[in-house]
Amino acid sequence: MAKKLHYFNVNGLAEAIRYILHYTKQEFEDVRHDLATWPDEEFKKTLPFGQLPIYLEGDKVLNQSLAITKYVARDSDLIPADHWQQAVLDSTVYNIYDFVKSFEQYNQEKDETKKEALRKVIVEETIDFYFSRFEKHLADNGGFFIGKLSWAEFILVGVIEGFNIFLGIEIEKNYPTVKKLVEKITHLPLVKEYIASRGPYKAPQLRK
Amino acid sequence: MAKKLHYFNVNGLAEAIRYILHYTKQEFEDVRHDLATWPDEEFKKTLPFGQLPIYLEGDKVLNQSLAITKYVARDSDLIPADHWQQAVLDSTVYNIYDFVKSFEQYNQEKDETKKEALRKVIVEETIDFYFSRFEKHLADNGGFFIGKLSWAEFILVGVIEGFNIFLGIEIEKNYPTVKKLVEKITHLPLVKEYIASRGPYKAPQLRK
Repeated sequence: MAKKLHYFNVNGLAEAIRYILHYTKQEFEDVRHDLATWPDEEFKKTLPFGQLPIYLEGDKVLNQSLAITKYVARDSDLIPADHWQQAVLDSTVYNIYDFVKSFEQYNQEKDETKKEALRKVIVEETIDFYFSRFEKHLADNGGFFIGKLSWAEFILVGVIEGFNIFLGIEIEKNYPTVKKLVEKITHLPLVKEYIASRGPYKAPQLRK
Repeated sequence: MAKKLHYFNVNGLAEAIRYILHYTKQEFEDVRHDLATWPDEEFKKTLPFGQLPIYLEGDKVLNQSLAITKYVARDSDLIPADHWQQAVLDSTVYNIYDFVKSFEQYNQEKDETKKEALRKVIVEETIDFYFSRFEKHLADNGGFFIGKLSWAEFILVGVIEGFNIFLGIEIEKNYPTVKKLVEKITHLPLVKEYIASRGPYKAPQLRK
């Protein structure tokens, strides 16, 4: 059945999905919308909750980046069989998305002074609150959340890359195990080729 | 293995977990903290990300309400075997938690005028944006998200009850299928007995 992913022409919340689709050798149409002209109100109205990414398989539609990422990883060794391990990964991706909330708040702020203050809090406090914990979790388990590669590491790397490009930072620099993980994921077979073929992302221009 | 759930003495993000633990006949210690004196800084420091709920099984610890809810529903008919159905439920609970974000923003606002403005937006706009969609999703599938009872309906009802008690509203009144679902869940065997034994919750007093 034809697979199609709609998102913006940037990493953000969909790069983990793209990485896993490539890594697990699934053919899909990678539809990219322009952030500079978003929202396209006509298209937005057709989306289940007005947001991207969405994933289509034939006439079936799925929204929510975490649900899509986990779904495209099904039947691969990126999803463990053990229930407790599954729960640890679910918990981990929600913790990662709690970190993403700090960006959403920053992104929604229109007042430049307040926006800069929010950026300062992210860079000086929020990143370390979350990444000191992710670093320890990974370091305690051989560099992965459950001792072997899973869909949750793709989520973390996708989020790091999104923050880095939107905020012009390098989150992983102070967290050696996280840094190694970013290198590992971006050098996986087929992920590496995908990255080479798309080239680097540029910091996106958002519509004011 | 001894099971233990830590949360506040209110419904909020843990009532779905309690409902499912009772419904699936799992014994657990229902540890309740007082919102009026929260945070207890010493206890908070011991939590993985400083937040409740957490769930313990022997010496294993899990945070994040959605991860806990799904985990306690494992091995029951509340989790479908089909991957697409699992993905639809994952997507649904994330959509429900996107709705919860509106409450978090309201709850964090200290300025009374701004807080009242946020409450007005929730009551007049946000609820209908989400609940018109949940209502249609349920009505199109015989009153459930995938045509039969799953863990996602417990999440929705828990969130509705939380909003109702914290905001003094009755979200479900304009959504007949949602309203029926609330009645269905709260009258399930063992859930009904649990609710009778704990009595109604009172609107919580939060520490200023």
